[in-house]
Parts: sequence; structure tokens; C-alpha cells
Amino acid sequence: MSGAFTLVLGGARSGKSALAERHLLQQAEGRAPVYLATAEARDDEMRARIAQHRFQRAGQGWQTQDAPRDLVGALAGLPVQAPVLIDCLTLWLTNQMLADADLAAEARALAEAIARHAGPVVAVANEVGLGIVPENALARRFRDAAGRLNQDLAAQAGCVVFVAAGLPLVLKGQM
Amino acid sequence: MSGAFTLVLGGARSGKSALAERHLLQQAEGRAPVYLATAEARDDEMRARIAQHRFQRAGQGWQTQDAPRDLVGALAGLPVQAPVLIDCLTLWLTNQMLADADLAAEARALAEAIARHAGPVVAVANEVGLGIVPENALARRFRDAAGRLNQDLAAQAGCVVFVAAGLPLVLKGQM
Amino acid sequence: MSGAFTLVLGGARSGKSALAERHLLQQAEGRAPVYLATAEARDDEMRARIAQHRFQRAGQGWQTQDAPRDLVGALAGLPVQAPVLIDCLTLWLTNQMLADADLAAEARALAEAIARHAGPVVAVANEVGLGIVPENALARRFRDAAGRLNQDLAAQAGCVVFVAAGLPLVLKGQM
Repeated sequence: MSGAFTLVLGGARSGKSALAERHLLQQAEGRAPVYLATAEARDDEMRARIAQHRFQRAGQGWQTQDAPRDLVGALAGLPVQAPVLIDCLTLWLTNQMLADADLAAEARALAEAIARHAGPVVAVANEVGLGIVPENALARRFRDAAGRLNQDLAAQAGCVVFVAAGLPLVLKGQM
Repeated sequence: MSGAFTLVLGGARSGKSALAERHLLQQAEGRAPVYLATAEARDDEMRARIAQHRFQRAGQGWQTQDAPRDLVGALAGLPVQAPVLIDCLTLWLTNQMLADADLAAEARALAEAIARHAGPVVAVANEVGLGIVPENALARRFRDAAGRLNQDLAAQAGCVVFVAAGLPLVLKGQM
Repeated sequence: MSGAFTLVLGGARSGKSALAERHLLQQAEGRAPVYLATAEARDDEMRARIAQHRFQRAGQGWQTQDAPRDLVGALAGLPVQAPVLIDCLTLWLTNQMLADADLAAEARALAEAIARHAGPVVAVANEVGLGIVPENALARRFRDAAGRLNQDLAAQAGCVVFVAAGLPLVLKGQM
């Protein structure tokens, strides 16, 4: 039996990660929460952002694991009841695309791994399709893949929340 | 007397077309639904996307008409009670802009043609104004025109729905 | 004691300014509304847009003041009960960034100035984080700063509204 799965969608700097962390802690019931981090520091800008996020979680008892690509393996290696935050799916998809992976197959495997996990899972994803069509063909392909991944996981999730300016808007289920 | 008019807004790969199709079929009451397609295949990427959409509608009894620019004429040529899906307004606007048409006049004529149609009409449009300001002046002009068109048609519609990750958020009326 | 503070978020050409103006007028109770305009005409495109906005407000009794950067000073100079519309925060942030200001300090000072004002305040801001990641580092920095400003002011506001196609979606409080 799979645990509660929540998808948290939002734009850049929308407050989606902070909201997702609070939401997972509410479901943790005393178990140590696990943070599966997909960000890879490719430059100083990203290194600073990652360090800031880790600092924000410091002292709250999170166990952090890096999983830039192998979220399926990381989930399989956790205690089945562990509360898990995946932050974020969009960077994971970027990493898969840069590694030239089969995006549809990877998305399917991830959906199954989430379904198998017995503890609560909260996954964060960026909504990236609400701007003008990108001039760059790779960016368009990425935008399509991200939209498809969000749709597939939203169909599977018991709860889907859109975050704007730090405020939640529940699209499905209840928070 | 005009029929029910629904505007479905969303980002790229948000699931807005699938939702719009289901919504129109619910109102079709046995009449054959008409799909007014505004997409023009300008390259292989678009040809593949159009073919995929047609395939998804195959076997559901849709009659498809291409109307990259003359939605007004296409609507006037249909049986007055026909259930009509327009997919999508944003590509139609792109085509009008590339043809150097008077966008305000075309938008007005389209709004009137929708108002005259007696059967249910569902129109799909992209929300494109939620990214960073485009560096390209034409993209900014397009973004403004698309926003204005969405506002005008939303004011006229009995129902307006925003779609994210395949999930509807009703902004006006009822689905 | 601070007055009611409403934050109106939306994309380009979403109808957010028109909605914000109507919302402020509802709270004006006969007092002359003040429009704090942050737009600076840097080219003909912006000059035309500013002129159009002023024309739209003409005849409605608005007193307009330009405050491209010094919103804090402008607010302090108004009668404490004046109903105030700030349009918009995102251009103000752009102006601060172009002037190489300390964005966090400026945002803090603005939040305090809004909190001190006794009359109703409605502030308009763009949501800019829902497109693909910009290639330009300055655009990414701006996007982060805008998202943070929106989050901070949304936390302080009694009412937060997201506008799409001219239609309001209340994220917090009541309109």
C-alpha cells in the first residue's frame, strides 16, 4: 500500500519548497524526514542557492541525500515508512535530459517508485509553461517534458497544490 | 441566442486541450463535435505535435477543420447547433500577427462570431504572460495582444477555467 | 494602526491594474485616491503604455504621483488616511536593481512604510517566475528578487489576489 503523495507546483521563488517542507513535517509523526536533493551545483550561483537551502533546513532534524538522477534507487534504499521530500522534480528532469536519458521511461520508473513507498512523499516541481514560447528548441522540449511529468504525477497524487507568493492553492485533494 | 461559451486557459503541456475536449463532449448531447484547428505545421516539430493531437482524437467521432486564420468563416459555415472546440486561440493570434492583420478588429469579429453560434463553444488559449519580460519586442507585442484577447473573451464567457498539471481551477461560472 | 493592505498579483496584460483600481475605489469611501506610478518611460513603447494607463484613469478623480524609486518617501508625504494604489512593485524593483540599490533593505523599508500607512493600500505586482529559466543571469537575479518581494508582501497583506484574464482568484483573505 502506498503512502500519501503530494505534488507541490509553483514558479521560481514562489515559496514552494518551504511550503512542501512544512507539509511533510506535518505528516512525519516523529519519524526523521528525508530530503532527496536533486540540485547539482554547476556554478557558484547554484552552490550558493543549495547552501542556503541546507542552512534553512539545519536544526530541523532532516537527513539529506543527494539524488541528482537516481531518485528511484534513493527511494528504494530508505526505510519504507520514511517521510520523504523530493526537491525538485524539475531539476531531476533537467539532469536526466542533460544525460540524454529516456525521459518517458525515467518518469514511469519514478512514478512507480513513489507508488511503492509506504511513507508520505511530497514532491516539488516547477511550473515552467506560462511564459512566451522559448526561442531555444531544447528549452521547448524541456518545457513539454516538464509539463507531461507534472500531469502524470498530478494524476497519481492524492493532493496537488499550486503555490504563488508563498500561498497555497489546492488543485486536488486536501492539505 | 448564443450557446454556452467556455474559455480554457493554461500553460504549455498543461493538459488544457484534453480537458477542453472532455468538457465539450459532455455538452455535445449526441451531436458530432467539430474541432477547429488553428495550428499550421511550419516545421517537423509542429507537424509531429499536430499529428499526435489528431491521433488522440481519432475514434471519438470528431470532425476536424483547419482554420489557421478564418475562424469567423469556419464558425459561420457550421450547423448552428454544432458543438465546437477551437484549439487554440493563441496560435490563431500568432497566425494573424504573422499576416500583419488588425488584431483588435480580428478579435472583435471572432468574439461576435462566437456569440452568434447557437451550439456550445469551448476555446483553448495559452497564458503566456507569467514569465520574465521577453527581450524581443515582437514577443512583448504578442504577449500584450494575447493577454487582451484572453481578457475580452473571458468577459464574454459563461465559464473560464485555468488548467495546471491537468487539473482545472474554475475562475468563472461552473464546469 | 495600519490600514487594509491588498496585494494583486498577475501576469502581463492580465487585467491586474484595472482590478486593483476598482478594489481601491471600493475602499476609498469618498476620499480622493492616490496613484503612485513607478513606471519610467525609457522608450516610446513604455511612454505609450503609461499614457494609455493615465487616460484610463482620467475623469475618475485620481491624483497621480510618479515614484519610480522613492515609494517610501511618497507614502510618507501623503495624508495618513489616503487610499493608495501602488502600480507596480515589479517596475519599482526593476528601477532599484538598475540603480544598484540594496534590494533586501529597500524591500524591508517599503514593507514598513506600507504598514505605517493608515489608509487602504493596494499594490500591484507581476508574477514572473512561471516561465522557463531565463538564460540571462541578471534576469534570473531579478526573478528571484521579485519572487521574494511578492512572498514577503503577501505574508504582510490581509488580502492577496491572483488575476488571470481579468478574473480574480483570492489566495488569502477576502476581496
